[in-house]
Amino acid sequence: TTYKIAAIPGDGIGVDITDAASQVLNTLAQAHGGFSFDFTTFDWSSKKYLERGWYMPEDGMEQLKKHDAIYFGAVGWPDVPDHISLWSLILPIRTSMNQYVNVRPTRILKSVTAPLAQLQKNRKDLDWVIIRENSEGEYAGQGGTTHGHGPNAIATELAIFTRVGIERIMRFAFETAKLRPRKKLTMVTKSNAQRHGMVLWDKVFYEVAKEYEGVVEWDKMLVDAMTVRMVNKPESMDTIVATNLHADILSDLAAALAGSIGIAPSSNLDPTRSCPSMFEPIHGSAPDIAGKGIANPVGAFWSAAEMVRWLGKGDLDKTADQLMEAIENVSENGIRTRDMGGESSTKEVTDAVCKEIEAI
Amino acid sequence: TTYKIAAIPGDGIGVDITDAASQVLNTLAQAHGGFSFDFTTFDWSSKKYLERGWYMPEDGMEQLKKHDAIYFGAVGWPDVPDHISLWSLILPIRTSMNQYVNVRPTRILKSVTAPLAQLQKNRKDLDWVIIRENSEGEYAGQGGTTHGHGPNAIATELAIFTRVGIERIMRFAFETAKLRPRKKLTMVTKSNAQRHGMVLWDKVFYEVAKEYEGVVEWDKMLVDAMTVRMVNKPESMDTIVATNLHADILSDLAAALAGSIGIAPSSNLDPTRSCPSMFEPIHGSAPDIAGKGIANPVGAFWSAAEMVRWLGKGDLDKTADQLMEAIENVSENGIRTRDMGGESSTKEVTDAVCKEIEAI
Ligand SMILES: CC(C)[C@H](C(=O)O)[C@@H](O)C(=O)O
Ligand SMILES: CC(C)[C@H](C(=O)O)[C@@H](O)C(=O)O
Repeated sequence: TTYKIAAIPGDGIGVDITDAASQVLNTLAQAHGGFSFDFTTFDWSSKKYLERGWYMPEDGMEQLKKHDAIYFGAVGWPDVPDHISLWSLILPIRTSMNQYVNVRPTRILKSVTAPLAQLQKNRKDLDWVIIRENSEGEYAGQGGTTHGHGPNAIATELAIFTRVGIERIMRFAFETAKLRPRKKLTMVTKSNAQRHGMVLWDKVFYEVAKEYEGVVEWDKMLVDAMTVRMVNKPESMDTIVATNLHADILSDLAAALAGSIGIAPSSNLDPTRSCPSMFEPIHGSAPDIAGKGIANPVGAFWSAAEMVRWLGKGDLDKTADQLMEAIENVSENGIRTRDMGGESSTKEVTDAVCKEIEAI
Repeated sequence: TTYKIAAIPGDGIGVDITDAASQVLNTLAQAHGGFSFDFTTFDWSSKKYLERGWYMPEDGMEQLKKHDAIYFGAVGWPDVPDHISLWSLILPIRTSMNQYVNVRPTRILKSVTAPLAQLQKNRKDLDWVIIRENSEGEYAGQGGTTHGHGPNAIATELAIFTRVGIERIMRFAFETAKLRPRKKLTMVTKSNAQRHGMVLWDKVFYEVAKEYEGVVEWDKMLVDAMTVRMVNKPESMDTIVATNLHADILSDLAAALAGSIGIAPSSNLDPTRSCPSMFEPIHGSAPDIAGKGIANPVGAFWSAAEMVRWLGKGDLDKTADQLMEAIENVSENGIRTRDMGGESSTKEVTDAVCKEIEAI
């Protein structure tokens, strides 16, 4: 099998780490022998936008649809307002490609130093999968401005929750929890202060929960209190489901507690497989270190492993695990970038991971 | 001077800690000699709501207005949906009383064990004041439901940002930062994904920032990345300004990183002093430990200290500092509740703080 991958390196360190990820993916395919990758690179970057006034061509989505998966680096550049760059690229891809689930696994990789004292001793206490609603909620994009930006200006953000949207994410979350050893789901809400959309969110959750009675254990947290529980009782949670914005915030916190934002992966999934899913590290474009060759490629590699898992539909799980093992071995051997306490370059880590893959 | 205080104990441990706070406040006034408190208790609780169908009487706000300050315990009880209890009491008080600023100072009190390894060594690295917009944004309360809760249900939450609302909170934040030793302000936003209201938020910030050029140093963070910075570089921040929801989340995280949610105070301020301001610990009603006499009263005492500071308009700062000193000494002497690693009851901590106040 040859998997057709649309690679969108994007901005800043997105370019470095997409290069690194494709090198590692090719090595993995070669070592395995049973499949290969065919990468097409789309230079839909902020740099190009500044030159020509657009990120994606008009038939951009059609082009993406011809691929089996999308690999995304990072987007965001100081010279372009963030809401322009993001609403021109990553956010429309998520919704147009029906990627209504964003999966963010978090655990403390071998040899990573976690900032919480408790986790330095009990590393396995933190082992979460955050299921982020990825298609609506606070990212619906609606809202507007009245009276311009003048003295009487009023601007709004409209968060939209639909039963269809909530039901499918809750079902995905329960199915994920069901397959995990601990079979536990924590649902996050803010229905005490947000009394319309979030109340529907809770209600649909309770309905879906009934179908999993005796199968998945669950509890419910307010998003503010959730941050406290993540810090104080990481071992008390496993699978977590939250809205687009809440999960955005909580998954960054999770990555920080697990040792580095440079490590964390994310999968934007269309569970119906009618469109290609998209895989991206959760870190940003990091303009301050762009082009210096020191970006941490681990989040990119972990995302690549998740892509392999998804493409294989169960058949490539062992291969994805091998990539994870290679990443952890290299890190354990002290070949790490600065954010992980090491001194290695992106290239050094990448080459070492490739060697390790060949050796496993 | 006699300060008239409206005490609203509310639900659960709110009752225990409001009792404790009034005992400590009376002791403080007596020790000082120059002022006293006249408490009126309003039993606007969920228990009463279940009996009679309402929290506050119709002239509730008028009654509150006759006081110099409001002391609030906690609200929320399992038998009442949270959005009913909160929208019947605490949220309308914040807006009706023009309390458009919510101030949440966070530091690691003496003898508290912080969960981050870095902070166990360098306790002073965490010293923040979070300025929360308290009157609009995601807490505007607007939005609704179409197609009921049925198969086609759509429910919305409308966040509203006004120039007036943003300008006044930004000005308050800069004024706060200006008086702090480090003179640093971090502005939190999510204007990359929220492209209407949050873009106005940023724009007004930049305008107000110009007035403080050379006086206050500032930077800007996305709310998700902010959680990472709080974990990794606590020492890099001082004053923080954020929206109603963002600051709600970040202030709980701040409290957790500072060692216990039971310690953290909050002040709901009307800076124009046309209405009474309200002081409340940031923890909830904790139904699981309600009535057991083991609730941590430290957040309540710290909130009381902030109330004294506010009422004194600069004249009672030393008295408020004495209360803080008493709290810290007691804690250092090992008289702490369980959440702080001790074994003492609410009453034991309260009596010890009173004794300490008399001794200072
Ligand atoms: C880049 C940005 C739009 C994005 C988000 O907010 O979803 C990022 O923070 C993420 O977590 O994927
Ligand atoms: C009780 C609740 C409405 C409240 C809020 O969300 O504002 C609380 O979490 C707080 O932080 O004061």
